[in-house]
Amino acid sequence: MAAKNKTPVEAASAESMARRQRDISVSEFFLKNRHLLGFDNPRKALLTTVKEAVDNALDACEEADIIPEIAVEIRQVGEERFRVEITDNGPGIVRAQIPRIFAKLLYGSKFHRLRMSRGQQGIGISAAGMYGQLTTGTATCILSKVKSARQAHHIEVQIDTRKNTPTVLKDVEIDWHPTFPGLASEKNSQPEPLMSAHGTSVAIEMEAAYVRGRLSVDEYLRQCVIANPHLQLHYRIVLKSPAPAEAGTPSGETPASNATPTPPPTAWVSFARMTRTPPPPPLEIKPHPHGVELGMLMQMLKDTESRSLRSMLSQDFSRVSSAVALAICTQAGLDPKANPTRIANRDSEALFKAINDTKLMRPPTDVLSPIGEELLMAGLQKEIRADFCTAFSRPPTVYRGNPFQIEAGLAYSKPGENEELAADDPVRLLRFANRVPLLYQTGACAISKSIIGVNWKNYGLAQPRGALPLGPMIIVVHIASVWVPFTSESKEAIAHYPEIIREITAALQECGRRLSVFLSRRRRQAEMDRKRNYIELYIPHLAIGLKDILDLSSKEEQSVVTRLRGLLERTHLET
Amino acid sequence: MAAKNKTPVEAASAESMARRQRDISVSEFFLKNRHLLGFDNPRKALLTTVKEAVDNALDACEEADIIPEIAVEIRQVGEERFRVEITDNGPGIVRAQIPRIFAKLLYGSKFHRLRMSRGQQGIGISAAGMYGQLTTGTATCILSKVKSARQAHHIEVQIDTRKNTPTVLKDVEIDWHPTFPGLASEKNSQPEPLMSAHGTSVAIEMEAAYVRGRLSVDEYLRQCVIANPHLQLHYRIVLKSPAPAEAGTPSGETPASNATPTPPPTAWVSFARMTRTPPPPPLEIKPHPHGVELGMLMQMLKDTESRSLRSMLSQDFSRVSSAVALAICTQAGLDPKANPTRIANRDSEALFKAINDTKLMRPPTDVLSPIGEELLMAGLQKEIRADFCTAFSRPPTVYRGNPFQIEAGLAYSKPGENEELAADDPVRLLRFANRVPLLYQTGACAISKSIIGVNWKNYGLAQPRGALPLGPMIIVVHIASVWVPFTSESKEAIAHYPEIIREITAALQECGRRLSVFLSRRRRQAEMDRKRNYIELYIPHLAIGLKDILDLSSKEEQSVVTRLRGLLERTHLET
Repeated sequence: MAAKNKTPVEAASAESMARRQRDISVSEFFLKNRHLLGFDNPRKALLTTVKEAVDNALDACEEADIIPEIAVEIRQVGEERFRVEITDNGPGIVRAQIPRIFAKLLYGSKFHRLRMSRGQQGIGISAAGMYGQLTTGTATCILSKVKSARQAHHIEVQIDTRKNTPTVLKDVEIDWHPTFPGLASEKNSQPEPLMSAHGTSVAIEMEAAYVRGRLSVDEYLRQCVIANPHLQLHYRIVLKSPAPAEAGTPSGETPASNATPTPPPTAWVSFARMTRTPPPPPLEIKPHPHGVELGMLMQMLKDTESRSLRSMLSQDFSRVSSAVALAICTQAGLDPKANPTRIANRDSEALFKAINDTKLMRPPTDVLSPIGEELLMAGLQKEIRADFCTAFSRPPTVYRGNPFQIEAGLAYSKPGENEELAADDPVRLLRFANRVPLLYQTGACAISKSIIGVNWKNYGLAQPRGALPLGPMIIVVHIASVWVPFTSESKEAIAHYPEIIREITAALQECGRRLSVFLSRRRRQAEMDRKRNYIELYIPHLAIGLKDILDLSSKEEQSVVTRLRGLLERTHLET
Repeated sequence: MAAKNKTPVEAASAESMARRQRDISVSEFFLKNRHLLGFDNPRKALLTTVKEAVDNALDACEEADIIPEIAVEIRQVGEERFRVEITDNGPGIVRAQIPRIFAKLLYGSKFHRLRMSRGQQGIGISAAGMYGQLTTGTATCILSKVKSARQAHHIEVQIDTRKNTPTVLKDVEIDWHPTFPGLASEKNSQPEPLMSAHGTSVAIEMEAAYVRGRLSVDEYLRQCVIANPHLQLHYRIVLKSPAPAEAGTPSGETPASNATPTPPPTAWVSFARMTRTPPPPPLEIKPHPHGVELGMLMQMLKDTESRSLRSMLSQDFSRVSSAVALAICTQAGLDPKANPTRIANRDSEALFKAINDTKLMRPPTDVLSPIGEELLMAGLQKEIRADFCTAFSRPPTVYRGNPFQIEAGLAYSKPGENEELAADDPVRLLRFANRVPLLYQTGACAISKSIIGVNWKNYGLAQPRGALPLGPMIIVVHIASVWVPFTSESKEAIAHYPEIIREITAALQECGRRLSVFLSRRRRQAEMDRKRNYIELYIPHLAIGLKDILDLSSKEEQSVVTRLRGLLERTHLET
């Protein structure tokens, strides 16, 4: 038996080793390493799937200039088996693209351009489908209708993981209909029905687990609404048995946030949009010359459609005018009319040096679409009842040639109003990247690192060494960028670029200063109230004493009391 | 100008969006996300490159049953530019495989089998070459000779990142010669020359930085020798200017460990092997049925070479005899003679359930190649002068169907002997996975988590809450597995599987218990010494007093002193 289960030991030769070498498809790779994509465990798998589908829906609506409306339905179909269906009113997907978008890793429209978007890798939704396929053997079901078509396409597709290619199992045209027939009749539903003339619905069945709490789909969707105030969201989850609460949260207790529905919504729940104004559409930019490395420059020289070096420089980069291009050529000692491909092979190093020796305008930064201070504060105030709320957007800036912008905000709770925010607990943290909530890997994220790095004692909060500040408060930080540097493919934490940490810190410090003004005013107010109470309490007794001693009339007594009160209040309250 | 740099805003349609969809090659993906592969910054890039090349060399020698000898040369060729060359005495690589092994991501022999090895992804060395190409535009140079050939192949290759395919720039046959001609004449060199009848040398030029300290190539190589006691290693680094020390370590200070050469070795330095006995060769196994998910089972049924379900089960899995296979078929209500492909499409769920309802032997665990307690201790004692040293190997066990084994050890410093190990600093930590040292991402690693989780106060060490214990000590942990679950492609930290954390904890606790015996014995000894000193100090004075009082002779005085000393020592030392 042992001999059959183990390959016998035999020294290999170069020839026998060569015969074992083979291609590894990217699907096989991520199937075996699926924790890299956010499919570590059944609970996280559920969240990641919803997240990838909602991200795609929002991106598609944004690109097509449609105000998004999305329905998320989670239905438990077995003990550890769930069906997740996400429907949007987006532009739809043309038939030919559906199989590859949903069943091929590393396929998409966002990777090759510099433009702020939620997706950027071309992995997410196909990975979710692949996980469903691995754990349940089922296919991803897509229903999509584009505006110009009469009918919708209903397609079922799996990944051939050996080849990383889609296998279409079903492909029919059917009427486009809302997949949530009960939606319109629910009392919670909004006047505007989800049904639109176009859209996409994707359904995946998978091994999963639903657990309420900080890392749940509920929390993700709630934060999603904060970061996307123009989003109309419908959500329901149909369970076979009551959902367990997070470890440490006894079942039946108040949920982690007052906005979490308890129990989870088995009927449709709608989050109404806060604004009908869509965010300014993000713009696509070309790479900045100072963010490009030598090898990349060589590749660009080979790939360009320009015939001359000078036009290549001014066409393929941002911030290089024709005059600047000429100056770079001169500096490098190269002929501006030279063929870029020839330069790639022979003189790219001289060109590279000349580019980096040339002073250039910084990359354009007005290409991002921040949430905005006002909507960020509105979102926070939806989360908690706050006594104080502020938000601050930094001006856009640049890391490694990529424009990015930081927004931060904080909301300080009314005393006793938000049970889950205790004065001696760490503050709650909301992290967003390109409007996507980040729930996992808080410790590894540049946002957490920046918050910990700020000295919150300066602003009136307690803060243990090397830890988050304490207080009944929520901090929110949003990074918007044409390319967000994540620490892993599962896009859960921001990498520690010094420029990014510096910007987050500056934004937090501004919010902290405003908080400290509020907190010291509140402390003074509390002190004043305490003193006024003393005065109110003792003055009548004082008056009675004086009346006896000085033998005052009631009228005189009243006058003394009034004057005393005025005197004492003035004295005390001015200190 | 703005209009040229930014794409104008225009609502996209499904059709216009479809035109933007395209393939993303895995090379492009990792080029843009190169921090995922360990190429975040120039310092780490240098380490990662050395690591990938040395890992490959060791794996190849192991597989071909060759006692490894490896030379690592790092040469600074520009301010931020280094040439890294690693030469081994391995079996060599046949010509046809060289381009793909060194210039194609996701290509290799280790991904598709379950066998303990250092490499497992088929990414590392090609990624290093791609990074060199990106930052310097140069090609990877390979020189390789197999035993059966008369000459070596000299090949220069780059990656076409658009297609993830190799582009061969040079391909000639030349004489095989040691690439380190100075090696044999150096006084440090070992009697056995690196020159052998076969081997491989790879050279990559890249943007990099050399900084001494805990995250340096020096440290990596030193730890490599500990985990691979059969390795003969030669190392030199030729710098243009003195290497900066790590931040916080003033230049010129004693290096982080007493084995670090200071300054870095510009002449060849050799680490002699501690044993000529190679480790027992790891064995390849088949997957265990209980570690396989439904989707994977379906794939295996489609891919099998067996004609019947019964033979597929017994041939393609470990721990499934023909009788057990029959029992599974019966349990599932399936014909043992059925065609596996047909089962895949129709009855895989019944089969999956039957497999998981069947009790099976655990996976074979004697397929791993641990370092061994003795060699682990020898390695530790090479690192520091220790008063106490212990190591403990747990029996092999299983996570998710994969056999793995934990070894742990610790060495407690002689007082005052190891300057860099202070009594009130956290202990030093050496982490190994399949004999590869892990230097980065300590905080994210299951090994650190386990060490922090052990209550070291029980064993006589101070330990701040949620932190490493304090003390002049080194802890070493090695995980050996047919598939090590890393938290990222750069393979720097072990994922937090509960089974793995449990095993590491158990191994550490055993070492801790042994340490506590040593520490309490040492404390008792110190106490005894202190008391003996008191006695020695006061007895003569006591004797003089008694002599006066009792009018003793010198001889009587001497006898009293002796008896008193005996009495007092007995009394005190027994308490």
